[in-house]
Order: sequence, then C-alpha cells, then structure tokens
Amino acid sequence: MSHTEYQTQAAALLETLSWRYAVKKFDAEKKLSEEQLQLLLEVLRLTPSSYGLQAWKFVVVENSDLRRELIKHSWNQDQVADASHLLVLCRKSSLNGEDVEQFVQEIAETRGVSTEELAGYENMMKGAVEGRTKDERAVWMEKQLYIALGNLMTACASLGIDSCPMEGFDAGAYDELLSLEEKGLNAVLVVPVGYRAEDDAYAPLAKVRKPLDELIVRI
Amino acid sequence: MSHTEYQTQAAALLETLSWRYAVKKFDAEKKLSEEQLQLLLEVLRLTPSSYGLQAWKFVVVENSDLRRELIKHSWNQDQVADASHLLVLCRKSSLNGEDVEQFVQEIAETRGVSTEELAGYENMMKGAVEGRTKDERAVWMEKQLYIALGNLMTACASLGIDSCPMEGFDAGAYDELLSLEEKGLNAVLVVPVGYRAEDDAYAPLAKVRKPLDELIVRI
Repeated sequence: MSHTEYQTQAAALLETLSWRYAVKKFDAEKKLSEEQLQLLLEVLRLTPSSYGLQAWKFVVVENSDLRRELIKHSWNQDQVADASHLLVLCRKSSLNGEDVEQFVQEIAETRGVSTEELAGYENMMKGAVEGRTKDERAVWMEKQLYIALGNLMTACASLGIDSCPMEGFDAGAYDELLSLEEKGLNAVLVVPVGYRAEDDAYAPLAKVRKPLDELIVRI
Repeated sequence: MSHTEYQTQAAALLETLSWRYAVKKFDAEKKLSEEQLQLLLEVLRLTPSSYGLQAWKFVVVENSDLRRELIKHSWNQDQVADASHLLVLCRKSSLNGEDVEQFVQEIAETRGVSTEELAGYENMMKGAVEGRTKDERAVWMEKQLYIALGNLMTACASLGIDSCPMEGFDAGAYDELLSLEEKGLNAVLVVPVGYRAEDDAYAPLAKVRKPLDELIVRI
C-alpha cells in the first residue's frame, strides 16, 4: 500500500467508525439485497476466534411473525422487527473434545496435512477446552462472539450498512422461540442490520467518547 | 454510496479479511509510525461498548526490557517483543455507580443536555451495573474488550497492518509487571501489531473456516 493509498484508507476508516452508531429506528422499507446479506454472512464466517475453533453459528431470522414476537423479549426494541434483517449470534450449547477433533479434521483437509502432524496442536486445544468447566466454556464461547460483533459492525459501516448491537434481550425466550436449544445453540447477541430511518432521533447525536489521554497508558 | 462504490468496497473488505491472519513472526525491523499508532488508538477509542460505558483502557508497552520480560508470561510467544508495538487491552478493576455518573456527565457535556434529562438513562445503566455481581461485572467488561479486538483487527487489516490476537498469557503477571492494579486495571487481551516477517511459516497457510451451510441457520 502506497503512502497515498494509506492516507485515503485511514481517512475512510475514521469516517466509517464515526458514521456508525447504534441505530434505534430503522427504515422498515429499505432492505438489504440477498447479495449484501451473503456478504455480511461471509464477514461473520471470516471472523477470527480463539484457536480458530468457531464454536458458533449465525441465525438469520426471516419469519416476520417471529420477528414481531421477539420485540417483547428484546426490551420492546422495535429494531428486531423493523430492520432489514435480524441476525442472532449464537454459541454452541456445549464444546468438547469432539469439536476439537472435527476442527483438526477440517484443518487437515484444508491444508493438505495429516491429522497426525496436527496432534500437538490438537492436544493443546483439547487442554484449553477440557481445562475449563462447562460454565467457563460458555463464557469463553460468548466472548468470541463479541469479536464477531466488532468485526461485523465495522464491516457493515464500511459498506454503508447500519446495525444495532443488542445485549438487552431475553436469551431464554430467543432460544425457545427460535428452537435454538434443539439446534445445539444459545443466543448471545442480537444484531438488526439495515438502514437508519431518516428521522431516527439518535442519528444526529454526537458520539460520546473519553478523550485519548484518559484511555491510553504508555509504559 | 453508489452501486459501483459498494462493489469496490465489498471486494476490498473480503480481501482485507482474507489477508488477515494471526501473525506468529513479526518483522522486528519494520515499525509503525507514531501517526499510525495514533490512528490505531483512535480506532480503539471509537469502538462501541455496552451503553457506551467504555470501562476500559488501552496500554501501549514501549519499554523494550518489559516487552522481553513479558515473553515468558505469554507462552513464550516472541510476538510480544518483536512486533512494532504491543497493545494490552485492559478492563477497569471495578465498575460501579460512580463510573456511570461520570459517563452521564460526559454525555451531558458532549451533547449539551442537562444530567437531569439523562436521569432515566442513568438509572437504567446503574441497574445494569449494580444488578451484576463483582464477577459478572468483570466478565461483562471483558466481553466488551473483544468488540475492541474485533474492531481493531479488521481496522488494522484494512490499513495493511498486521496483528496477533492473544488470550494465552498470564494476566496476573501482566498486571504486576505493568503495574496495572495500581492503575485500577486488569489485562484482558494482548495484541502485538506491526508487520509480518517475510518468512513467517503461518502466512501462506490457507484459512480454515467452516462452510457457510454449517455456520448459518435461516429461520
């Protein structure tokens, strides 16, 4: 990347991050195309995760009755129904040695190596999984989904697509209404994506961030 | 954004995310400029967090003796010393109602509204903080830092800057060596940033990701 390209990219990045905000009111008439949705799913797919384990799945809720039903389980936030698409970022309900073995199989196939050559890595990953309690594994998987969230929000903004990150929802109700448990999943984060409404009162508000000198420590 | 601009941006985004990998060997001779570092810090500053609370700080470790010392507390990963810069993403050691009050003050100043008008929001945030145990607050703060990590890795890649996300380090040793506790901080994630070495054996490896049909559920 030349210096000029870098400068252009740096300016675009700052503009992107400044443009983004948590949309409170989406334009219910403006929809993402299937091609745009596929791109966002690919962004999620490419998200890094610890060891690359990808102990997650991403649910796209397209059923509009279900989306309306989810409003009351989302602190009455209409965005879950009004946004173009509703993404639910889910962790696996359980994570164990078999998931590691399957992942090692996938590495071997993708990279054309034998699983024997990956035995050391496999054992390290199994140690990381099996050294954690069930609850610790759940929290660990949940944290990875916040990487996906960070990646998704930034990627969306770079494409001029709006989003709203949501932790405030009844995960148990989501699991039940979307039959997630029987899919071996639990809802962790909810992300409506689409386009901001022209009259979203939150759009013009200045972003509130602590100054750099309060946030950064140089040692 | 025109359709052509969107297509260009979409292609650049996929190239960016495909280009990124967890660098195992950095080029110790190639340094980020101070201007580049400032941009990355601004990227971290602009990261979204729950309620916008920003219960975090970002430490740049510049002392090379300290960085060498940290290797053995980082599963012997040389990246912490060899990368151009070492970022340590930290949560606050504690989070309570006073942090909320300070944040409300900052919102009021930034947006030119009275703190009285923000009382409802303040009470909601206080409920979210005080309704959690000390341990739950810690996990909650830690999760937010994974958003910062996701944002940072994607932003870096879009600028042609390499990174390596690290969970595998002795957080207690980091806290002690960097005197984080006395700054009211705890290390959560370590991110060396800089440029990949030309001979990093991991650079040419194919990215391993599950296929979309295993990762996506449409309901």
